[in-house]
Amino acid sequence: MSLKDDALYLHRVKQGKLEIKSKVTVRNGADLSLAYSPGVAEPCKAIFEDERKVFDYTMKGNTVAVVTDGTAVLGLGNIGAEASLPVMEGKAVLFKGFAGVDAFPIALKTTDVDTIVETVKLLEPNFGGVNLEDISAPRCFEIETRLKKETNIPVFHDDQHGTAIVTVAGLLNALKLTGRTLADIKVVLNGAGAAGIAIVKLLYSYGVRNMVMCDSRGAIFEGRSYGMNPTKDEVAQWTNKDKVEGSLHDVINGADVFIGVSVEGALTEEMVRTMATDPIIFAMANPNPEIMPDKAIAAGAKVVGTGRSDFPNQVNNVLAFPGIFRGALDVRATHINEDMKRAAVEAIAQLISDDELKPDYVIPGPFDKRVAPSVAKAVATAAMESGVSRIKVNPDDVENKTYDLSDLE
Amino acid sequence: MSLKDDALYLHRVKQGKLEIKSKVTVRNGADLSLAYSPGVAEPCKAIFEDERKVFDYTMKGNTVAVVTDGTAVLGLGNIGAEASLPVMEGKAVLFKGFAGVDAFPIALKTTDVDTIVETVKLLEPNFGGVNLEDISAPRCFEIETRLKKETNIPVFHDDQHGTAIVTVAGLLNALKLTGRTLADIKVVLNGAGAAGIAIVKLLYSYGVRNMVMCDSRGAIFEGRSYGMNPTKDEVAQWTNKDKVEGSLHDVINGADVFIGVSVEGALTEEMVRTMATDPIIFAMANPNPEIMPDKAIAAGAKVVGTGRSDFPNQVNNVLAFPGIFRGALDVRATHINEDMKRAAVEAIAQLISDDELKPDYVIPGPFDKRVAPSVAKAVATAAMESGVSRIKVNPDDVENKTYDLSDLE
Repeated sequence: MSLKDDALYLHRVKQGKLEIKSKVTVRNGADLSLAYSPGVAEPCKAIFEDERKVFDYTMKGNTVAVVTDGTAVLGLGNIGAEASLPVMEGKAVLFKGFAGVDAFPIALKTTDVDTIVETVKLLEPNFGGVNLEDISAPRCFEIETRLKKETNIPVFHDDQHGTAIVTVAGLLNALKLTGRTLADIKVVLNGAGAAGIAIVKLLYSYGVRNMVMCDSRGAIFEGRSYGMNPTKDEVAQWTNKDKVEGSLHDVINGADVFIGVSVEGALTEEMVRTMATDPIIFAMANPNPEIMPDKAIAAGAKVVGTGRSDFPNQVNNVLAFPGIFRGALDVRATHINEDMKRAAVEAIAQLISDDELKPDYVIPGPFDKRVAPSVAKAVATAAMESGVSRIKVNPDDVENKTYDLSDLE
Repeated sequence: MSLKDDALYLHRVKQGKLEIKSKVTVRNGADLSLAYSPGVAEPCKAIFEDERKVFDYTMKGNTVAVVTDGTAVLGLGNIGAEASLPVMEGKAVLFKGFAGVDAFPIALKTTDVDTIVETVKLLEPNFGGVNLEDISAPRCFEIETRLKKETNIPVFHDDQHGTAIVTVAGLLNALKLTGRTLADIKVVLNGAGAAGIAIVKLLYSYGVRNMVMCDSRGAIFEGRSYGMNPTKDEVAQWTNKDKVEGSLHDVINGADVFIGVSVEGALTEEMVRTMATDPIIFAMANPNPEIMPDKAIAAGAKVVGTGRSDFPNQVNNVLAFPGIFRGALDVRATHINEDMKRAAVEAIAQLISDDELKPDYVIPGPFDKRVAPSVAKAVATAAMESGVSRIKVNPDDVENKTYDLSDLE
């Protein structure tokens, strides 16, 4: 059987990948009178009297909505709500498998920004968090920004921040390995979509100042008259200070780091040869990277990461989002803020000790069971310290929380 | 421990009553490549090419949204979305336990009819059906009517139709027991909310013509100038043909059947004594009926049903909604129509054989394992015969479908 046949069979054999399961049994009248009428009136009344108790008595506190409009699904593009559902269910499978988070797909039959925002707000009672997924740029930026302001639960666009967090974690380790510091590197980013924008912003928050971002029209600079949008305008204010114009080929010269979230083949061996000594390359185009790792290394690259599981240093969002939401939910966070994202970056990076660190191991593997608990603990701690938690918990309890990771190899 | 303490403990100990569970395992890269990227692209593409395949490859086809706005929750009234969640989760527990249906709570932070309708439409991709729950009358009528028109999945307001179906099932058996026919009886209904309206409509569809409906202001008649709404206006056109005015006390005289969905104590022993010989009484006010069964029987009632589990003949919606949605989902029905509701009525009624039928056994018990499979088979058959099914299946397969009823005593 081919991958295609296997994948179709897996999705068909049980009619999708998720089920809703009871945590209580209803065997007889006595059970029914507790789980349903009349006993169920008691938690209802308790919540009516104190709305915060919804976290105690309902599934809300462990449940995340995986929200999409189906406009930017995998590499398939705008395939619509229905066709996006297998991805959303898959995401929910990962949430549960990697961090015990209950996640439910919400694929909305609209692409209107206002409607998406208003709908998620109407759904807020049911969820302890919102993971935005596969929503096209630049719409995703406005949706996330507005929802963060207008709701009181964490809103996280994984395609942006998940990718950014794992990339920067890998970059921190790669810098350590090559004896560089954040303040001194020149970074060229190729691709100004959701992930690219989030990476450039996260790097800026880490003190990286020498950055040039490119899109399909070349280097972005303040005042560029073509192919701009409000997000690119913003990025142009604090990147590419010298207002260098030209193609990726022109600006890559001398760069320490290349970060690609663009298209297959965008980075050539010739370009790598013009970079600084021992360059660091994260080539994350899917399914085929901007440059294949063997070619990058042949051209002098010291560290190469991709989005693929068949090469070392896979930038896989599964390293971030399960633990981030685990930590956020466990302290009933109202937001996922920059402190929490940075805590996740560092938790991931620090799982690789100085002794273990090597060019083909700057990012932990996706099935490393230490990752989600470490990230969860760090994120919960950061949430409490930065004042976005509703409750205080012992961070060790977050790390040691029992959810079933035994399936992971 | 009291019922209150027990109920609060049950809801708190596992943080609510539902979890989202994977039907697939993701242990390693090979699993991940099928359940998630890159294999997940295959079902996405298949659905994009033929949207009907969403029923094959996703959870949609077995998943029902339990939708509320929290305006009419149990006997608690308008307690809001958050406080309604324990009831919605409880409903989902019953869907799964009684018929293997995956149900998910959608408590909306709005009470605006247009907004509720539009939001449910936006959520349609994710669900194979919608169970409206605890939405106040008369708003619930417009919401249901519009959603039935504007979506292509079954929409069912359980507080209306679930109660009506089980009540009429019990009534059919009570009539058989007392030698009456539908065409000849006089029925008085007390309570013109969601359930009352649905019951009077269902009885009309069964050929009952001599009916008087009362609300808190007394008998409803065409042209009544007070306390009317569009739904009552409609009912008034084909009930109470003689335009009798007055209180319940006045109109109950000579009635064969009393159906109460109103308030405790609304029916007195004195009123029962003025009814026809061997009257049939369904006194379903919650938590305390319009008349207590012992008093009704002392006053001459032959058959008494209530909403309570501690008396015979419990009108419990759990006899209807799990099997109805099971049957509707199994044929991928686009609607739940009158034929399907009547099929459910008769499936429930027929589970009690003529030999078994007696005054305190006209309705099967809520934990009777035969009910949901029988209802599902009948509803699926009716859906196929009335042309609202997307696929044809063998009705025996619907009845014999393996979902876990072993927990039921």
